[in-house]
Parts: sequence; structure tokens; C-alpha cells
Amino acid sequence: MRTSLDCIPCFIRQALDASKMITSDEKFIIRAMKRVLAAISDFDLGLTPPEAGQVIHRIIREEMKDPDPYLKLKELSTARALELSGRIKITITGSKNPFETAVRFSIAGNIMDFGMRSDWDEAHIMSSFEKAEREPIDLKSLECLYNEIKNAKTVLVLGDNAGETVFDRLLIEVFPGNARVYYAVKGSAVINDATAEDARQAGIENVAEILSNGVDSSGTLLNKCSGEFLSIFNDADVVISKGQGNFETLNNAERKIYFLLQVKCKVIADFYNFRHGEWIVADSNSLNKTN
Amino acid sequence: MRTSLDCIPCFIRQALDASKMITSDEKFIIRAMKRVLAAISDFDLGLTPPEAGQVIHRIIREEMKDPDPYLKLKELSTARALELSGRIKITITGSKNPFETAVRFSIAGNIMDFGMRSDWDEAHIMSSFEKAEREPIDLKSLECLYNEIKNAKTVLVLGDNAGETVFDRLLIEVFPGNARVYYAVKGSAVINDATAEDARQAGIENVAEILSNGVDSSGTLLNKCSGEFLSIFNDADVVISKGQGNFETLNNAERKIYFLLQVKCKVIADFYNFRHGEWIVADSNSLNKTN
Repeated sequence: MRTSLDCIPCFIRQALDASKMITSDEKFIIRAMKRVLAAISDFDLGLTPPEAGQVIHRIIREEMKDPDPYLKLKELSTARALELSGRIKITITGSKNPFETAVRFSIAGNIMDFGMRSDWDEAHIMSSFEKAEREPIDLKSLECLYNEIKNAKTVLVLGDNAGETVFDRLLIEVFPGNARVYYAVKGSAVINDATAEDARQAGIENVAEILSNGVDSSGTLLNKCSGEFLSIFNDADVVISKGQGNFETLNNAERKIYFLLQVKCKVIADFYNFRHGEWIVADSNSLNKTN
Repeated sequence: MRTSLDCIPCFIRQALDASKMITSDEKFIIRAMKRVLAAISDFDLGLTPPEAGQVIHRIIREEMKDPDPYLKLKELSTARALELSGRIKITITGSKNPFETAVRFSIAGNIMDFGMRSDWDEAHIMSSFEKAEREPIDLKSLECLYNEIKNAKTVLVLGDNAGETVFDRLLIEVFPGNARVYYAVKGSAVINDATAEDARQAGIENVAEILSNGVDSSGTLLNKCSGEFLSIFNDADVVISKGQGNFETLNNAERKIYFLLQVKCKVIADFYNFRHGEWIVADSNSLNKTN
């Protein structure tokens, strides 16, 4: 999916927010923002948003001399997710359809995204979990996903944000069948996307093999991913992609992918005729572009 | 008041919104946005926000080959304001303190501002008028303003937005005393700020002499205003400044000025310890900066 003009103000706000998390020294922030603005003025809008974001967040990390500006927010997300996970695991295992309930909480966890907003808003986050069991989702796609996992030899889950990973673990725990499960993370820090270390803190190691995609982008840039990642991506029987960044970079991928995400911006909503805020369970073959 | 880092994402969004009002042709918008981004990357943050905005909106008007991109919004604002004005005039004249009530509706009219948002939101606009009579304002400053106007030989009102001008007219109609009244407008179009033509459509000519400040900026840039404007600005017994743009450029002016505005952004709110959304009636001598 290409970058929209509407992504531009959002990128600038994101860069400013990220800079402010690291320093209150205007000199540094101004220098970083000048570089970000100049970079964006030079952008090819044919790039996907995560490719554009990659350039911006590299500048921020470089100028701020901080390899992981969102580290504190990521740690807070994982800690809060672990706190919530006990109760949610009981809800999942006690429910009529534990797989469906686990998918629902995995999508609920997608709210832990600090690309759109950079402050911790407890009420905003909790409202996502509170509606997990009643938010409309596509139950037909869910059933197909269940059956494909049940029959799969290998399943690859493409992780999104730190914290959200905890709920992905709860989902993997109730996968049907006996597939070998891989959990892909980002090669290094970008926004609050989960890295291998973040995934370990969420306990992913207990349910899946952690696999770095090798890239510092908030999506999955197939043309830049490691050979090891690509081989598993291509050969896995089922690929599940979490979140917007992965969606924006894989919506046109050649293989079938199941997308689980919350639609968090108007750009994606308009592109696929989704509703802003909608919870998506869909496979790539069923997506219908509106423009 | 200098431009804040937080103004940057807002400028970019404003430039994009203004471009989209003129064309849906991405080629033109991208070219304009690239110039805007490059210009902002080169900005001196020592400028006031209206000085920075002046550069940006000149680029948009030039690239879009449109001397007045907000013309339709301005015409809609004036038409809607004229519709509302009949009922509001009755409310003013029938009230216990017509001057206070007129000041209140003049501040209510300050909601017709398309710098912050570029769509017409009827509910948002109407809520401003609905609370006009009960919103807290500084009654002591109001009384001082009343007494100064009563004793003045000349009063200068610095207008802000088209549409809002209609309510400024209702205020001037109930000025006490016999002062000669000037109503300053922008030299040419910038955002939805009132020009001489917009003021005429609002009926200002019937109550005041329309005076161009000579500049295409959403504030009052004294170092660029015409000699005629400056002479009246300096000599007037009372100067009333409407809106945020004028406030941002005159908050440090040497002469006493009465400011009437709604605080519409966090940058100004933080700078003066105002509340976001607060309605201000204050003279420049009483302002206390927080940083």
C-alpha cells in the first residue's frame, strides 16, 4: 500500500513525539525535525508507509543517539499486558470457543500502538480489552483460519507491537493441531514494534520459535528481509499478520496471508472500505480495494 | 510569540487541507507539499506562527494558482453568520448588559476559524454560540474595556476571520460613547482571515471605517504593516484585537491592547497558562507568561 498524502502530517507528529520522549532540549529536536522534514520533502509516495517511517525513525534514533526511543513505553506495555494476561487467559480457556476468544484478545492487544499516539492512555487501552468479546469480527474467516492452522505443519505469526505479543502468546497457546510455530519480530527497534527481546519478555519462547525478519521497519519489507525469514515466510502453511504496519506492506503479497488488526487510520479505512476502528479478520485473497 | 515545535505538524496539516480544497490532483498537491516541507525545514522558530504561516500559505496559493483557497469557506461563514445575526442582535439588545452580551457573541464568532480544522462542522460552530451567554469571562477587564471605549476618540478593532466579522459588527453597534471606529482587515487573502471584501459583506462599513493592514498574514505583523495602518494603530485610544493570530503577533506589542479570543491550541494555552478552549478578555498589560 502506498503512502498517502494524509500520512505526511502523521509522520511529522510521530517524529516530534519520538524526539520529545528522549529529550526536552529544543536544539536537538529542531536539528532532527529539520532532517525529517527535508527527508519527507524528498519522498517517493510510491513507498509503503512503513518504508517511509523507516527513514524517519532512523533519523530520530541517530539524532537522539538512542537506539530504542520507545523502550520505556514498550516495557510498560509488556508489563501491563502481563498483568492483564492472567484474567484474560481464564476468560479464553473458560469460553465456549477458546480460539475465537483468543483471536479477539489478540486483536484487542493491537491497541498497544504508539505510532498513532505517543502517550500511555489507560482508558483508551482498557476500552479495547473491554469490548474484545463483543466487537463484530468475520466469523467465517475465523473458521477458515482455525481449519488451516489445524491442518498446518508450520505457522508463522508476524508480530506487531510490544505488549500485544503477550496476547499473541495466549492465541498461539490455543492453536489447534500440532504445527511448528514461528513468531517473527523486527530486526531492531522501530517505534514500539516488538524485537526479539520484547518477544522474550512476553514469554513467546514458550510457545513459538522467535524469528527476526532482519529489518528495522514497522512493516514486513519482503525485499529487505533476511533469507532465513523469507524461506519460512514462503514455505509456512499459514501466515498470520498482526497490525497495520504488516498489513500496509503485505496487502499485495503473492502468498495467502491472514490479517488480524484494528483499523486505526482513515487512510487504510478508505483504501479498503473498512470502518475506522473496525476489527479485521481477513485473508489476503478476500480483500477488495476501493481505490 | 515564537513558533513552537508543536506548530510544525499543524502547519503541514493546514497546508495539506488547503491544497485539497483546491484540487484533488495529487501531482499539484505533492509539488506544493514538497515546497512547504522544504520551507519549514528551513524555518527560524523565532518567527511568530503567523509569520511562518504566511510563507506556507503563499506557497499554497502560488502552487494552486488560486489567490484565495478559503473563499468558499469564507462565503459560507459570512452567510451563516448573517443568518444567525438577526436572532443574536435581539438577544444583545434585550439583555441586561448589551455590551457584555455583544462581547460574548463576538468571542463566540471566533470559532469560525479554519486554520485548526478545514471542514465546516455545524455542531462545533453552533456549540460556541450556544454557550456564549454563560461561558466564564473576565468581567473586570470587560468593564475596563467598556470605560475606555466610552471615553475614546478613536477605537481600532483588529478583525480575525470572515464570518466572525458579522458579530464584531454587532459589538461595534453597541460601543458606548462616540468614538470614530476603524476595523482592520488583512491586506489580501490568508487562510480564512477577513479581507476588505469579506468585511464589506458582513456590513462593517455601516459601523466602522475598513482599514487594510496591508499584509497577507493571519496576524498583525507590525514591521510589515502599511504606514496608514501603523499611524492609526499607534494613535488609537483603544485597540481591540480579535483571535489567536493577532494575539500571537501582538502579545509583546508596546502599546496597550485588549485581546478577545478563544484559546484554540495547546501552544498558546501552555504559554500563558490559559485553559484550552478558554474565552479571553484581557489587556496586554495584565498578561502573565508562564515560560
